[in-house]
Amino acid sequence: MRILIPTGLILVFSFSGVAQSQLSLMPIPASVQIGGGQLAITQSFSVGVRGASDPVLDSEIQRFQGQLSRQTGIPFRPQPSAAPTLQIHADHGRESVQKQGEDESYELTVSDSAAQLNAPTQLGILHGLQTFLQLVQITPNGFAVPAVTVWDQPRFPWRGLLIDVSRHFIPIDVLKRNVDGLAAVKMNVLHWHLSDDQGFRVESKKFPRLQEMGSDGMYYTQGEIRDFIAYAHQRGVRIVPEFDMPGHSRSWVIGYPELASGTGPYTLESGDPIMDPTREATYKFLDKFIGEMAKLFPDAYFHIGGDEVDGKEWDKNPKIQEFIHAHGMKSNQDLQAYFNQRLQKILAKNHKIMVGWDEILHPDLPKTIVVQSWRGQASLAAAAKQGYSGLLSFGYYLDLMWPAARHYAVDPMADAAATLTPEEKSRILGGESCQWAEWVTPENIDSHIWPRNAVIAERLWSPPELKDAASMYTRLNAVSLDLEWLGLTDRSARQQMLYRMAGTTEVSALRVLADVVEPVKDYNRWDESRGPIDFHAPLNRLIDAAYPESDTARQFAGLVQSFLQSGGKDPAAEAQIRTWLTTWRDNDAKLHPLLEQSSLLEEDAPISQNLAMLGGAGLQALEYLDKGQPEPDLWKTEQLAVIAQAKKPVAGLLLQVTAPVEQLVQATVSQSK
Amino acid sequence: MRILIPTGLILVFSFSGVAQSQLSLMPIPASVQIGGGQLAITQSFSVGVRGASDPVLDSEIQRFQGQLSRQTGIPFRPQPSAAPTLQIHADHGRESVQKQGEDESYELTVSDSAAQLNAPTQLGILHGLQTFLQLVQITPNGFAVPAVTVWDQPRFPWRGLLIDVSRHFIPIDVLKRNVDGLAAVKMNVLHWHLSDDQGFRVESKKFPRLQEMGSDGMYYTQGEIRDFIAYAHQRGVRIVPEFDMPGHSRSWVIGYPELASGTGPYTLESGDPIMDPTREATYKFLDKFIGEMAKLFPDAYFHIGGDEVDGKEWDKNPKIQEFIHAHGMKSNQDLQAYFNQRLQKILAKNHKIMVGWDEILHPDLPKTIVVQSWRGQASLAAAAKQGYSGLLSFGYYLDLMWPAARHYAVDPMADAAATLTPEEKSRILGGESCQWAEWVTPENIDSHIWPRNAVIAERLWSPPELKDAASMYTRLNAVSLDLEWLGLTDRSARQQMLYRMAGTTEVSALRVLADVVEPVKDYNRWDESRGPIDFHAPLNRLIDAAYPESDTARQFAGLVQSFLQSGGKDPAAEAQIRTWLTTWRDNDAKLHPLLEQSSLLEEDAPISQNLAMLGGAGLQALEYLDKGQPEPDLWKTEQLAVIAQAKKPVAGLLLQVTAPVEQLVQATVSQSK
Repeated sequence: MRILIPTGLILVFSFSGVAQSQLSLMPIPASVQIGGGQLAITQSFSVGVRGASDPVLDSEIQRFQGQLSRQTGIPFRPQPSAAPTLQIHADHGRESVQKQGEDESYELTVSDSAAQLNAPTQLGILHGLQTFLQLVQITPNGFAVPAVTVWDQPRFPWRGLLIDVSRHFIPIDVLKRNVDGLAAVKMNVLHWHLSDDQGFRVESKKFPRLQEMGSDGMYYTQGEIRDFIAYAHQRGVRIVPEFDMPGHSRSWVIGYPELASGTGPYTLESGDPIMDPTREATYKFLDKFIGEMAKLFPDAYFHIGGDEVDGKEWDKNPKIQEFIHAHGMKSNQDLQAYFNQRLQKILAKNHKIMVGWDEILHPDLPKTIVVQSWRGQASLAAAAKQGYSGLLSFGYYLDLMWPAARHYAVDPMADAAATLTPEEKSRILGGESCQWAEWVTPENIDSHIWPRNAVIAERLWSPPELKDAASMYTRLNAVSLDLEWLGLTDRSARQQMLYRMAGTTEVSALRVLADVVEPVKDYNRWDESRGPIDFHAPLNRLIDAAYPESDTARQFAGLVQSFLQSGGKDPAAEAQIRTWLTTWRDNDAKLHPLLEQSSLLEEDAPISQNLAMLGGAGLQALEYLDKGQPEPDLWKTEQLAVIAQAKKPVAGLLLQVTAPVEQLVQATVSQSK
Repeated sequence: MRILIPTGLILVFSFSGVAQSQLSLMPIPASVQIGGGQLAITQSFSVGVRGASDPVLDSEIQRFQGQLSRQTGIPFRPQPSAAPTLQIHADHGRESVQKQGEDESYELTVSDSAAQLNAPTQLGILHGLQTFLQLVQITPNGFAVPAVTVWDQPRFPWRGLLIDVSRHFIPIDVLKRNVDGLAAVKMNVLHWHLSDDQGFRVESKKFPRLQEMGSDGMYYTQGEIRDFIAYAHQRGVRIVPEFDMPGHSRSWVIGYPELASGTGPYTLESGDPIMDPTREATYKFLDKFIGEMAKLFPDAYFHIGGDEVDGKEWDKNPKIQEFIHAHGMKSNQDLQAYFNQRLQKILAKNHKIMVGWDEILHPDLPKTIVVQSWRGQASLAAAAKQGYSGLLSFGYYLDLMWPAARHYAVDPMADAAATLTPEEKSRILGGESCQWAEWVTPENIDSHIWPRNAVIAERLWSPPELKDAASMYTRLNAVSLDLEWLGLTDRSARQQMLYRMAGTTEVSALRVLADVVEPVKDYNRWDESRGPIDFHAPLNRLIDAAYPESDTARQFAGLVQSFLQSGGKDPAAEAQIRTWLTTWRDNDAKLHPLLEQSSLLEEDAPISQNLAMLGGAGLQALEYLDKGQPEPDLWKTEQLAVIAQAKKPVAGLLLQVTAPVEQLVQATVSQSK
């Protein structure tokens, strides 16, 4: 098996009439060459394996066939004697523990009569099977895969998603379907943020008060964890555990207050403890704890957090200050570095590589550690220059509610990282998207992660030259459909939440509103001035159901742009714009009675009114534009006031069609000009 | 605890402003009295149990709380010291095996400050908790239950659903969510049709070739069956197994050809074997087999099928004819009765009561047996007169694709049964809806069973005076919403199937068509003249996704009726009619490109065109009606031709808005009059 080294992006579509847009692949492979014709997927579809039989591979193929069957609705009945439709060969089987940097390449060749999938490892086979699934499409002649040759391997070896399960507990079945999603977009790491101030989520047999007193009773047993790790391993996903220390450690000290640098009192709701790095007892505890967890989590990497250490308890504790002085340290940062060195030795003893956030970077630590950067490419580049490996998470925080295109534009090798030497660049291992869990529950977490996470997966897998947002959105829509077949609820959960808020299944008017709003961005929902978040409050309002990105608003903005660029001479775009504006203008009258009868919806009455006003303003603007007649100055002033009003968040929601309506109003000609 | 004896239907709504329609209960309780105010469901909601602690009850309450939490989106955090919001008391715990005829009554009292649920048995508590869940509604002041007093008990003790798992295998997880559905509408029997010609679905350890050769490899292990029975028991649902004999037995004889009366050859696809009742070896086999199954299935009832015995193999076998003659029998029917007597003795030895279809009724059988009637109330009444107990399934066949109202109108005590004496009437135990599985898969079975099954549940539970279809449909819509929270896919599966057919998530035009079609009725899809069904064919076409009943068509027909009854003077109805007709007229142009690019959809092109023509015809009819002006005769003739065309099934689908459009066209005044 040759090793495939792609030389940048090769997309050759000249051999066939199949358009690029029909290949709904995400991430786009390193190299794709389209041939002539297509391979029919019929009831006799079958898979064969060349080489030795392998039960692991067999079960992977079975899952693949089940997935293909769900996608197509075809119950397969292969003819035992016939040649297999898809022939598979891997040079090597799976390692019992998946390694960071393993060969993940594969080669998939599809002709009009058969398909071949070859890879140096079974990891590559897993990826190739996902590519095959994405290539299957319905055609006038049945389901088929276009004839194609794909050579593929990832750009970065570490492509992860962090899920915080501390702020809100996320059950294993929800995590499992998200792992299916990761495998579908060729991500290979689930970074499991298992402890934080609000909850300790792992059963420790050595220190049971961690989970018993440090959680609301919701944690994973060791049996569940082992089962989950095996599940993820089968799908080519490594599980990297994170236990955040010495800060973010409230949940530890409820049961073990001796770990803290202060005296409390601490509850799951209050107190800001930091572990005491000056007491030997702390290390004895961590030695035993890490020894237990190192056995439970087989991955070579172990994340110790290390972020946002608020030094107040250290400042206030005279013994700790004395220790700092006695050891010639200059700052709390030095004390944290000392703590991390001690921690690193414990990890090394357990054959683990330490991973931590930006703040752990300190020259006293060995070059083996990995720094995960929430600060940006400059921080990552600085680490790489010093010889440390790094991962980018800055720009990939899914909880900030950014549009997919904004995440897509973030590249680990951009900005400061672009100036690194090739050797330094090789230390940038990849990146991780992050789903922090202040505002998610098992019900809506899928829709916060997906489908946007798929574009970060593409950024980390595919050639960096890919930058076209329009193509990305088209392909993202297709991926979204594939995710449905995995049981992810990113598109179905909202529907049920709307039913709940409305108390009826007749929610078409509510859906019109929900389709054009997005939750406020960044941490504007999490305003420190409002006091601490109640992590037990219901998350059942429209802000909790709304998608982070409104497809309707994006499409509408595109229509308005086309229309205005055409100088008002695009009747097809105008007709569509008019249909939307009319729907919005008339929607509040239909929706209002529903909003009034539900305590969960009444807060949305003003935004529904704003939408109606925008609809009216937009339609009036179209009238003036059509007639080419100047509008009264007063009208424009009034409309801009309405628009300014509509830009303000209502019930935590932004009305995302405001800007394009403003463009329409601004485009009208003033009388006074 | 007093026994509650309802004296017919008591619905008292005079004490409050809450309208009847806001009580979305299905089945409607024996007696409901509405009080003043409402009980708020807040985060501090809690449940308390009076009397001895009971782990079974505790786990039931936990499930109830989980369900309430899903429904409301509220994570409950009861105050340990506060009085419980809902206080529960049962006089008696659960029997380890649920008995037919156990007391299922309960009393639920809700005031504006607390609720009480009392019942003689925990079965009653289960039902009362489901009533409570249905009463929870969103209000301007949050989630709440109206103050209400409910006394309730079922009209019939046996309220079941038959699921055929032979024609298409249905996995346990799908059955489990359907059991949750049964519990939600207070049905208490799942009749599991486990063997038929096309598949033997139970693992027999004594006769392993039954499942190994008599199925396509898909069957339930005994461990899965035990787990499923326990699951159903927790939800108050008995599992009654059916092994169909001596006919419908192709799957038995593949592995054990000695059971057959003929010589075959038999495959799962062909042959019509009947068991040989004349050989002692047959009874030895059945004795061993029934002994094994009687232990596996704890219910007191055991269904032996007995339907549709095609006597051809008996006629052709000289030994069997000799046996009939030697024993003084007059017909194959007598031979079947002999077989059933032998079977009944084996069952009695295993402490099982025999249940079978109409055909088992024969004076030689003891009065303990139960006859399930697919033939109708006359057959049921005849059995009751002879002293036999009976169940009605005639009129409750869900696979016939009837509208809910048609099932709702069928009453076990109607027609011939109405003339029975009280003692004879008491022998009619209830009924069972039937989901035969020629045309269902795990994907669409929920939408074939639900929500229509809920109206059969109401017929079997609630007072017989309830007959109002309008109220039924309103409440059915609410139940449909509750079913969503149980994970049933009766409303969500179609969406994904539309995505698959279209190859995109942009399916709004396809949904417009899907909303107005229904599959052909009765067994018109299963036309014997077309030859045997391929039970392995994909079921992924529009006919497989379409709901058995179109809500849109029903609502449209209602609008047209109102409009015409008003003499064309109902502008609100007219506006809605016009909106629908316009949507339909314009839909084909949008949908056509999609239909062309999918092999699964191209067969639907003519029906989409028919819909467009109906839209146009209806709009033109409205014009003539509005103007009061006579239409040209030619126009009417043409339209009626179009309508006649649109009435014909296309791709197995009926266009259900044809009749109301015809009414509009017919209402126009002819020139020649």
